[in-house]
Amino acid sequence: MRGISITEPGEADVLQATDVQAPTPQSGQVVIDTVAAGVNRADVMQRKGFYPPPEGASPLPGLELSGTIREVGPDVDGWSVGDEVCALVDGGGYAEQVLAPAAQLFPVPQGVSVRDAAGLPEVACTVWSNVFMTANLQPGEVFLVHGGSSGIGTMAIQLAKAAGATVAVTAGTQEKLAFCRELGADIAINYREQDFVEEVRAATDGHGADVILDNIGAKYLPRNVDLLATNGRMVVIGLMGGRKGELDLGKMLSKRAAVIATSLRARPPREKATIVAAVREHVWPLIDDGAVRPIIQGTHPLDRAADAHRELEASGHIGKILLIAREAHGL
Amino acid sequence: MRGISITEPGEADVLQATDVQAPTPQSGQVVIDTVAAGVNRADVMQRKGFYPPPEGASPLPGLELSGTIREVGPDVDGWSVGDEVCALVDGGGYAEQVLAPAAQLFPVPQGVSVRDAAGLPEVACTVWSNVFMTANLQPGEVFLVHGGSSGIGTMAIQLAKAAGATVAVTAGTQEKLAFCRELGADIAINYREQDFVEEVRAATDGHGADVILDNIGAKYLPRNVDLLATNGRMVVIGLMGGRKGELDLGKMLSKRAAVIATSLRARPPREKATIVAAVREHVWPLIDDGAVRPIIQGTHPLDRAADAHRELEASGHIGKILLIAREAHGL
Repeated sequence: MRGISITEPGEADVLQATDVQAPTPQSGQVVIDTVAAGVNRADVMQRKGFYPPPEGASPLPGLELSGTIREVGPDVDGWSVGDEVCALVDGGGYAEQVLAPAAQLFPVPQGVSVRDAAGLPEVACTVWSNVFMTANLQPGEVFLVHGGSSGIGTMAIQLAKAAGATVAVTAGTQEKLAFCRELGADIAINYREQDFVEEVRAATDGHGADVILDNIGAKYLPRNVDLLATNGRMVVIGLMGGRKGELDLGKMLSKRAAVIATSLRARPPREKATIVAAVREHVWPLIDDGAVRPIIQGTHPLDRAADAHRELEASGHIGKILLIAREAHGL
Repeated sequence: MRGISITEPGEADVLQATDVQAPTPQSGQVVIDTVAAGVNRADVMQRKGFYPPPEGASPLPGLELSGTIREVGPDVDGWSVGDEVCALVDGGGYAEQVLAPAAQLFPVPQGVSVRDAAGLPEVACTVWSNVFMTANLQPGEVFLVHGGSSGIGTMAIQLAKAAGATVAVTAGTQEKLAFCRELGADIAINYREQDFVEEVRAATDGHGADVILDNIGAKYLPRNVDLLATNGRMVVIGLMGGRKGELDLGKMLSKRAAVIATSLRARPPREKATIVAAVREHVWPLIDDGAVRPIIQGTHPLDRAADAHRELEASGHIGKILLIAREAHGL
């Protein structure tokens, strides 16, 4: 079968379509015939050599995909060959056949195509685990997500609004900010022209942000801490602005604030299974009802994964970019 | 009645015994005839002018005390004149009569003198709220407390051992370390001679610390982050080593770690009442049973509060230093 290999660490053109061995399911696993795979910044980091796959994972990139179950391994309950699913995987998503733990499968939600479902697992699990399970966002609280038009951002806006929070976002163009507002964002800040600390404070009568979801890291650390409200929680999930920053523990202490940094991929299977179960319980019904939907920028053929990476790195997109492995019904 | 005033910000001798107006209980409050008051580093910070009392609090120092209830205000259930109690207060503890919210009272535990009970509220509430309610220390986890021989440290060792954790401490003398070991500490590190990161790693087969309770702040921030295990939680409750430090978010992210900073005094009454109720439920039975006990370095007369501050600032003590307002039975 065809898969996308990283021939060596480097720019997008190191992603090469090659013939690789088809996977065989072990206990608790299934193999999926891929329809589409989601593209994530973690894949770019892996391609550059900064983010080696966890032990035991496929060396191929790809952390999420959708398709139909091709084969079911031993000790798998509740899933059958032919089921339309999407999955969170530890790697290997950029391929025609993908191995997935049964505990990391989701049914394709009602009203969502099999293809578009490929853009759901990573953002739904990341946002739910960090914003709700870790930071415990409450109704009426103020939530800020940086990069509001990203895949993570578009899911975060929708889930935070569904939870009754006031939602602030940053983004870099008026088009992106307009889209965030359409999705429900209450406060939309152009980080190229405005200071997000001043803007969120002004829009919340000085309250600040109760929860911040940040993918910038060091560059925003002092300002994020400034903006946190009393009992504020900030979760860092990316380091696009560097890893080492100054932390003012005096400000943190006077606010009783928390800074938490996490990643989804490195979590052990038990934690991923807990997150997936929580997402199925809390997020999937919102998607089934149409209250929350996948936001898809566009697609590229699987063999053209390099084009998808270039588009992601150019940062002009809104929502998720997908790779298409095969056509499916109902697209 | 007599109370200790801070005549101006400065060294210990600005603490002066003066005649001050006796308090009157309002709704939900009691007045306590003080037997003893605990001395805390926060009192030293307040004396120096760095830690102004919260709005509405007495300007006199003192965050905990013991004694007998002298007067009960309206809307107080479950407490009567003459009850022997200790209390967490927002200020004003260095006085012969002290106003306390009924929701912040504790009965004097079995087997503990009224006098020694003055040393319990601040350390029990600080350790329980941070190590258990916030950091959620679990049986079998590795717990490090800096300043293991302090009032906070001696309570933290005992509660963490009672919870089934492996306990590591730092302290600056062999005498202090020996005392920590007697209290149950498994790993005792002389910070003047040893590197706590290396020592805890060596003693835990490289695992590191799941939970760290830190009163040093900036100076220890990079090493504390180094030492955290995967899913590690660090709670900063003091800034004796400065407030601004470098935070490596990359390390934090790869460990899925949390840095939380808190203080007890500034919390609103509702949060304090929640903490006091949890301490009564979880900590008080351990003290009643003798599994956990107050560690008292020694006492000074209330009028000599300056001597108590000098002793605390010299840092030669083990456990709590108390001020005695009047003699009581059973000492």
